[in-house]
Amino acid sequence: MKKGKYNKISDVSGILVGHKTLSDGDTQTGVTVILPRKDIFRQKCPAAAHVINGFGKTSGLIQIEELGTLESPIALTNTLSVGTVQQALVKHMLKENQEIGLSTGTVNVVVGECNDGYLNAIRSCAVTEADVYEAIDDAKEDFALGSVGAGTGMSCFEMKGGIGSSSRLLSIGRQTYTLGALVLSNFGKKQDFRFEHNAFSSCQDTAPEQGSIMIILATDLPLSSRQLKRMCKRTSAALARIGSWLGNGSGDIAIAFSTGNTIRHDDLNAIQLMQILNENYMDLVFRATIEACEEAILSSLNYAETVTGRDGHIRYSLKDTLQQMKEEN
Amino acid sequence: MKKGKYNKISDVSGILVGHKTLSDGDTQTGVTVILPRKDIFRQKCPAAAHVINGFGKTSGLIQIEELGTLESPIALTNTLSVGTVQQALVKHMLKENQEIGLSTGTVNVVVGECNDGYLNAIRSCAVTEADVYEAIDDAKEDFALGSVGAGTGMSCFEMKGGIGSSSRLLSIGRQTYTLGALVLSNFGKKQDFRFEHNAFSSCQDTAPEQGSIMIILATDLPLSSRQLKRMCKRTSAALARIGSWLGNGSGDIAIAFSTGNTIRHDDLNAIQLMQILNENYMDLVFRATIEACEEAILSSLNYAETVTGRDGHIRYSLKDTLQQMKEEN
Amino acid sequence: MKKGKYNKISDVSGILVGHKTLSDGDTQTGVTVILPRKDIFRQKCPAAAHVINGFGKTSGLIQIEELGTLESPIALTNTLSVGTVQQALVKHMLKENQEIGLSTGTVNVVVGECNDGYLNAIRSCAVTEADVYEAIDDAKEDFALGSVGAGTGMSCFEMKGGIGSSSRLLSIGRQTYTLGALVLSNFGKKQDFRFEHNAFSSCQDTAPEQGSIMIILATDLPLSSRQLKRMCKRTSAALARIGSWLGNGSGDIAIAFSTGNTIRHDDLNAIQLMQILNENYMDLVFRATIEACEEAILSSLNYAETVTGRDGHIRYSLKDTLQQMKEEN
Amino acid sequence: MKKGKYNKISDVSGILVGHKTLSDGDTQTGVTVILPRKDIFRQKCPAAAHVINGFGKTSGLIQIEELGTLESPIALTNTLSVGTVQQALVKHMLKENQEIGLSTGTVNVVVGECNDGYLNAIRSCAVTEADVYEAIDDAKEDFALGSVGAGTGMSCFEMKGGIGSSSRLLSIGRQTYTLGALVLSNFGKKQDFRFEHNAFSSCQDTAPEQGSIMIILATDLPLSSRQLKRMCKRTSAALARIGSWLGNGSGDIAIAFSTGNTIRHDDLNAIQLMQILNENYMDLVFRATIEACEEAILSSLNYAETVTGRDGHIRYSLKDTLQQMKEEN
Repeated sequence: MKKGKYNKISDVSGILVGHKTLSDGDTQTGVTVILPRKDIFRQKCPAAAHVINGFGKTSGLIQIEELGTLESPIALTNTLSVGTVQQALVKHMLKENQEIGLSTGTVNVVVGECNDGYLNAIRSCAVTEADVYEAIDDAKEDFALGSVGAGTGMSCFEMKGGIGSSSRLLSIGRQTYTLGALVLSNFGKKQDFRFEHNAFSSCQDTAPEQGSIMIILATDLPLSSRQLKRMCKRTSAALARIGSWLGNGSGDIAIAFSTGNTIRHDDLNAIQLMQILNENYMDLVFRATIEACEEAILSSLNYAETVTGRDGHIRYSLKDTLQQMKEEN
Repeated sequence: MKKGKYNKISDVSGILVGHKTLSDGDTQTGVTVILPRKDIFRQKCPAAAHVINGFGKTSGLIQIEELGTLESPIALTNTLSVGTVQQALVKHMLKENQEIGLSTGTVNVVVGECNDGYLNAIRSCAVTEADVYEAIDDAKEDFALGSVGAGTGMSCFEMKGGIGSSSRLLSIGRQTYTLGALVLSNFGKKQDFRFEHNAFSSCQDTAPEQGSIMIILATDLPLSSRQLKRMCKRTSAALARIGSWLGNGSGDIAIAFSTGNTIRHDDLNAIQLMQILNENYMDLVFRATIEACEEAILSSLNYAETVTGRDGHIRYSLKDTLQQMKEEN
Repeated sequence: MKKGKYNKISDVSGILVGHKTLSDGDTQTGVTVILPRKDIFRQKCPAAAHVINGFGKTSGLIQIEELGTLESPIALTNTLSVGTVQQALVKHMLKENQEIGLSTGTVNVVVGECNDGYLNAIRSCAVTEADVYEAIDDAKEDFALGSVGAGTGMSCFEMKGGIGSSSRLLSIGRQTYTLGALVLSNFGKKQDFRFEHNAFSSCQDTAPEQGSIMIILATDLPLSSRQLKRMCKRTSAALARIGSWLGNGSGDIAIAFSTGNTIRHDDLNAIQLMQILNENYMDLVFRATIEACEEAILSSLNYAETVTGRDGHIRYSLKDTLQQMKEEN
Repeated sequence: MKKGKYNKISDVSGILVGHKTLSDGDTQTGVTVILPRKDIFRQKCPAAAHVINGFGKTSGLIQIEELGTLESPIALTNTLSVGTVQQALVKHMLKENQEIGLSTGTVNVVVGECNDGYLNAIRSCAVTEADVYEAIDDAKEDFALGSVGAGTGMSCFEMKGGIGSSSRLLSIGRQTYTLGALVLSNFGKKQDFRFEHNAFSSCQDTAPEQGSIMIILATDLPLSSRQLKRMCKRTSAALARIGSWLGNGSGDIAIAFSTGNTIRHDDLNAIQLMQILNENYMDLVFRATIEACEEAILSSLNYAETVTGRDGHIRYSLKDTLQQMKEEN
């Protein structure tokens, strides 16, 4: 399948991504925000989520499950900073929408996380509310990948992971639609990485895997929340193909939204007209999802540079690791 | 069924509850914490949760669903302060457990909420991290009910609601077990309140209901997480009996845990021995759950005093409301 | 709320219900079929289901959950005859649709059940495939209630239960929509029946409740499968109001479908246009659901006559029971 | 990991598998039964299920989900014969347990299916109740694989699929435990088959995939129903690794049970003592599950012989397909 202009989630029109990177000695962490569209509180997106493995602390999914809508940006950060980031996102929404908590109800924000404790002194809870606002201000289409934002301290297959992204173009009927994936990769043992005929299969490390991954999927295809949930479930196939065993200690979560329909907060019409993709076309959506998700994980490895973090812990980039392996042979 | 010593959730041995109340003019809110047992991170409780209606922002349920264990206190607060309370609870757990994020993984905390925006200037996000620590320090067996802690600004059946609690004793085999409920009540239209032959049935108010309820269930019965989930599901019957229609805008969530088994964080044994209640006795558990939950909601109405909050909004207590109705007739 | 012409589920235009009653000595059982619309395989209805308590053997829900559509009639029968009824329904669909299993895929049929073993010699598996075809042939708008069809041998609150139905009219925008419920009632202890100020509260019977209920909901409101699922979840409130404790041994299941949209089997359009009810109107749907469901249960008790079945077991009708109680006092 | 004596699910002690094969011209179908242990109704097994994709008609999962127990054999057959097989299994259980439906409740049986319509004239519903009894009588440890029983008419990656099985031995503590998988394979496009460096990647076929798979997992490890459910979820990784895209039209379902604990039907003790595997060992279980499941799928391809079925349709075996490809080059 063809890829979009940037080969990033932002190829879906209207989506912006911003980072705030905290990289200083023992502190290797940050915040990444995905802005689905302008005025998201008043122009909600159909949405869904799926928990592949729930050893995780993502917040905001209960309301997505019930109402099938996303009404805020999605923020990603480290496991122990979810509270601060959630509070900042709430305050951002209050500022943008003066009616929340007065003339209308409250707001549901979404924060995902992975544990960057190998490189980051995660107990210090270094992320501040101001970092979230800076990440929002940084949002753009052509955003950075690798060891940036929430990806700063993350590890993937015991190498340097972080933020990855990819997109696919789908021709359906006479239209071309876009589907994008953004991942925060933080999982896997080196010996399990399925890459170039299992180059890493001789690696040995018996420590338990503690990793996880956050997967954000977006599309301008008009999918219902039920269809978006089916799409989310296919991401486990991408994880398996690249080498994940869906480990016990993993928080593996996929969240998907569509910009193909708009649920207006103040819609007074009793009956709303929606476009919905014919279910028979879902196979195409599933293939695009798995391809984009697998490539997004690879891109997180390709873009991340070697990082030295807390207590001198080092995660080498994929490039540096391959170079080392070549020299050793 | 018989009731426990305090007729509160703390009749289940080891459970303590603390409040921090913020009641000052436009600020009518607070924090309530339920401490399940000492050293909860290392001595986890089997646990489960059930979302009756998911228009809510409770955090921490994903991991409970996956692993079936509770490893932190449960905190309750207003909808827009969940982030701050979650971050404070994380810091509390980090302080109590120096190994978290270093020699062991991270920690999953649980924060529930209701929207107290009718009485409380909820947009000000008045709750601080210090308030959470004060609530924890306040924890005791014989804790206060009504307009206290997280219940300070809550409304129930358009009267003053808040914190309620109740307990039941169950004789099973030769043992007596205890089951307790604690609620944060914030739901219902006055005309729907099923009380003393529907005294309120003539009330009329056409505004949509926006309320919600948090229900915490605890027992020393040795229940598995599957059985605790079944128990959680019965709380919708208590809501229905007292007059709830399980409204669209409601965040109705039940969380249950058992102190009857301990999942030790560092258990090295491959096989663990657990006691599990014979499934044929679950009917007794269900009846106790529904009774305790219904009475806990009533107790929140009985103990709450009339409160005047933001912009002069007033919620009358049940007692004052009945007095007014008597005078009007 | 107003009721429809028949105060039955068939007030939703296009819905027909048919029975085959087997009432002969020890055999007190039968089949009831709900036909959602003509050519249901090619003109599928959005649908959803919810398991209130899963001690039950209903088949066909997996595909409804995944695809959100109903493509066959729904049949009800006794617990141990589900297989035969399912096979008959499959054969009926094969006959009606020559392309199934050849030029198109297979078909998903839905069969619900309750255990009528108190009055019926259920081990004899008396229901035949021919009974299902007769029930289909019997389908009409003004169908019978009480001890008929699948309701022939059912008990409710230890009195004679069976088939009940009710409907409500909803004014939304400038349109009037209809919502209907049909129940197969087979649950409850006499002392728990909430009827005329708890007339039955002095009854005592310590045997465990083994009952269950099947609830079919239908509407011409254009609801999505997600909204239909939310509607299904409200039926537990109806059960609680009339006296159910949602017992351990109960198979309590709700299935809902909407005739407000059509998912055509052979639709070649990539994008389909659907009408969807504004979520803010769901409270009205929930109230209608709970009211109609509660009244449907009551109607099953009001229409059922006293039945003597296997081994001389007798279930008295509600009317006869009240008469007896009057005579005893 | 090491494999068991037969490298089949029957390496888990007590498990027997039987087939009835119907192979005659246009009729290419059958029944396979998995007997978990003797007297399964009175000695229930902890159990769980997971629906990977729900375009399927498996029956019996609702009660497994609620109660976490398996109380009958599991039968597999073609999609349109589920009713007949279910009814036969019910009658078998009634014969074996005279108290069902009289002095105790009913029984929940489990029937899984795939669509063998390419080779089998599935509309004829050729399977009879007698076939089920013959399959039960045929049950043994060293059962046949490939185009037998329910696998007679199934296709996998557009070659001949059917019944496959595999097992793994796990050393935990001082004990050796066994985990086994049995699959009914019926999915996949040829070009997606991941086998010997993607030998099939040049194949082209644009027809939509309609396939599915039933996966039965068994172990003598003492796993809770929650842990068994986690185990079930890992099978999607096995499917992905061997080339599945988890297609829209697929009924992909995993069912797992453990013989490591026994839930006795008539247990009078209020509290039951159970052994439960330490959650930290689940990674080992997950790896064994994925390995055994992937190998079971491969074994179904390796053992199945070329079959010619209805309307002259042919599915070549993997061996014959590879031979053809060699000759063509």
